[in-house]
Amino acid sequence: MIKPQTLKGFRDFLPADALKRQFVIGKIKEVFEQFGFDPLETPALEYAETLLGKYGNEADKLLYLFKDNGGRNVGLRYDQTVPLSRVVAQYQNKLPLPFKRYQIQPVWRAENPQKGRFREFLQCDIDTVGADSPLADAEIISCTLTAFKTLGFANPIMVINDRRIFDDLGLSKKEIIILDKLEKIGNDAVAGELAASGTKDPNGLLTILRDTLPTERLAMIIAALERLGYVQGKDIRFNPFLARGLEYYTSTIFEVKIPDYSGGSLAGGGRYDKLIGQFSGRGLPAVGIAFGFDRLLDALEENHLLPATPTATQVLVTIFSPELVNNALRIAANLRTNGVNAEVFLEEIKLDKQLKYADRKGIPYVIIQGPEELQKNVVKLKDMKNQTQEELTIEQITTRLQSS
Amino acid sequence: MIKPQTLKGFRDFLPADALKRQFVIGKIKEVFEQFGFDPLETPALEYAETLLGKYGNEADKLLYLFKDNGGRNVGLRYDQTVPLSRVVAQYQNKLPLPFKRYQIQPVWRAENPQKGRFREFLQCDIDTVGADSPLADAEIISCTLTAFKTLGFANPIMVINDRRIFDDLGLSKKEIIILDKLEKIGNDAVAGELAASGTKDPNGLLTILRDTLPTERLAMIIAALERLGYVQGKDIRFNPFLARGLEYYTSTIFEVKIPDYSGGSLAGGGRYDKLIGQFSGRGLPAVGIAFGFDRLLDALEENHLLPATPTATQVLVTIFSPELVNNALRIAANLRTNGVNAEVFLEEIKLDKQLKYADRKGIPYVIIQGPEELQKNVVKLKDMKNQTQEELTIEQITTRLQSS
Repeated sequence: MIKPQTLKGFRDFLPADALKRQFVIGKIKEVFEQFGFDPLETPALEYAETLLGKYGNEADKLLYLFKDNGGRNVGLRYDQTVPLSRVVAQYQNKLPLPFKRYQIQPVWRAENPQKGRFREFLQCDIDTVGADSPLADAEIISCTLTAFKTLGFANPIMVINDRRIFDDLGLSKKEIIILDKLEKIGNDAVAGELAASGTKDPNGLLTILRDTLPTERLAMIIAALERLGYVQGKDIRFNPFLARGLEYYTSTIFEVKIPDYSGGSLAGGGRYDKLIGQFSGRGLPAVGIAFGFDRLLDALEENHLLPATPTATQVLVTIFSPELVNNALRIAANLRTNGVNAEVFLEEIKLDKQLKYADRKGIPYVIIQGPEELQKNVVKLKDMKNQTQEELTIEQITTRLQSS
Repeated sequence: MIKPQTLKGFRDFLPADALKRQFVIGKIKEVFEQFGFDPLETPALEYAETLLGKYGNEADKLLYLFKDNGGRNVGLRYDQTVPLSRVVAQYQNKLPLPFKRYQIQPVWRAENPQKGRFREFLQCDIDTVGADSPLADAEIISCTLTAFKTLGFANPIMVINDRRIFDDLGLSKKEIIILDKLEKIGNDAVAGELAASGTKDPNGLLTILRDTLPTERLAMIIAALERLGYVQGKDIRFNPFLARGLEYYTSTIFEVKIPDYSGGSLAGGGRYDKLIGQFSGRGLPAVGIAFGFDRLLDALEENHLLPATPTATQVLVTIFSPELVNNALRIAANLRTNGVNAEVFLEEIKLDKQLKYADRKGIPYVIIQGPEELQKNVVKLKDMKNQTQEELTIEQITTRLQSS
């Protein structure tokens, strides 16, 4: 006997969870398409050289790399931005630019699993390739904020910054990583870490940053968003300390925060104008964002924004007795033809066991048709939550369940 | 510079293809849920021992196996039936039985790529676990035929057989594999191969099989399906030579054929009552089917049953001049709020270039608002296919595009 188990950091999604995930994906996709993004799918496996050296040295260690049966060095998808960059280079004569795509696929990272961090997780990305205009950045931000509002969050906040601010100050990678911690560890601790890492005047640097104004690009992005009704300081907040981890960002960076949610940012992205050039002679400007799907679900759950439907089935058609199997099958067929999700119980067992099954599975309604009801050409519809029942015709039930 | 390329047998799906895939998945899911199946998702990676020894020796060679960073022997999902069996054993106290689930995820097989055969492909499965009744088999068949009809196929055929017929005749694995080829290579060739493999009276065996009647289980399945209006010989066809490859089937086996489609069966499955017992002390009867998604798409394409929408975007809002960017943004925001998929062009370039972009991308409508239209509070709506245009208010456009 083989022990049934999943690998550490990997998860099964049983129906109640899978339905929640589908609900959220459905909402997000709708908004992505409203903003003119089209779907793209790329393979789970890529040549290792496509993935290596794009995310930074630490991230490279988290890649799932192996040799395939043909001896090729391959790796599992680590994010969706690098595959997008490869796609844009590979099909450059076929794809009209700007190319706006969304992508919703799992990625794999060999991280140390901890609360909220997994080795397999879903990413939801939108990216615009081939547009340098600040309008492209503004549209990504507007699409993201719209998606969060559509999901039910009252006040999603987009924190924005421009990496060029760090470039202009000549800051090192090390210093940028320390500055990023300001919100978490506070002014003094950051100044201390900066001093320890060799910064000559840490407090001076912090003051300069605090007084920094948005770059020209950021100002244009903010202006475009304001025209659309977003409010600076409320919906959009400039934060000159925001750094974000990934190496490939070249200018604008941004992330989404939800007030009162302690789990960190729910989406993050920025402009990466040099990544695509690594795959083709021709560099192309690009900007995009990735939604952290697990955190998003977590925040939705905390805010009671997820439907509580443990099953997609609306009604269980019970089997009263062996002679009445035919009728049960026909009732179910009738409901299904009219778009009602109906399950027929599959064994001829006692009725109370069938009701118990519906209850355990969370099916909201049960249909019972015994000889009496059959004679009257009706069925009993039992409401499992309220424990009430009434006699109705199939047509009446269809009408009721279609609107439920 | 890194050469942008995909691995042999792996595919990118650019928007036009990705949209077709989503369309088909959406239709299939709707039918699966109508029949009371709920979604399940399992990880891409499993412990190697979960996968090995389930599919037969030849199939084991096609598994993508490797050691992960922690030295564990792991493998990529090869099908969705073995992960389902693991799930049922792992959560047996949590899952009410019968457990009816659908699963739509990619699987990986290191096959030699050839026309229509890939190393990464999508499977769409429905399975019912914990029900021994022939009703369970009949429901799987009915759900599958309904899905094919919903997709637009006029006459999908379910070919059925029972592996017990082979068991009762004491046939070897080798003989079964030869018999399975009857339709392809004909009576004489099969008799020849049987003789060569040591069968004593090949023609006798063929005659016996040809005269075989459906088993009791098959007769009950057919009876249930006839009550639902399916016609034996037309919708359901008993074929005592049908074998199917996978090792784990124990009784009923079936596959879907489409008349005039030469690419083989589009879905296949059967009853596997012993697989789950390998993961838990407790054996559980199970029956299910897997849709071959690529063949399905191929057959749909051949029968002109797929929508030809290269983009989900309904309208491109052009930018007439730099001063009118604000107006374009507001027009797009207005359309999106009303559920219309609208893209704003992101650079302020010549109008004819923007129109060319819409044309190349296949966006059906374009909105133009110059100073004249602005004064009249209307926009020009250009139909890219008919090359006609009219002046309309945004409200009129919304109404028209919402219903398109």
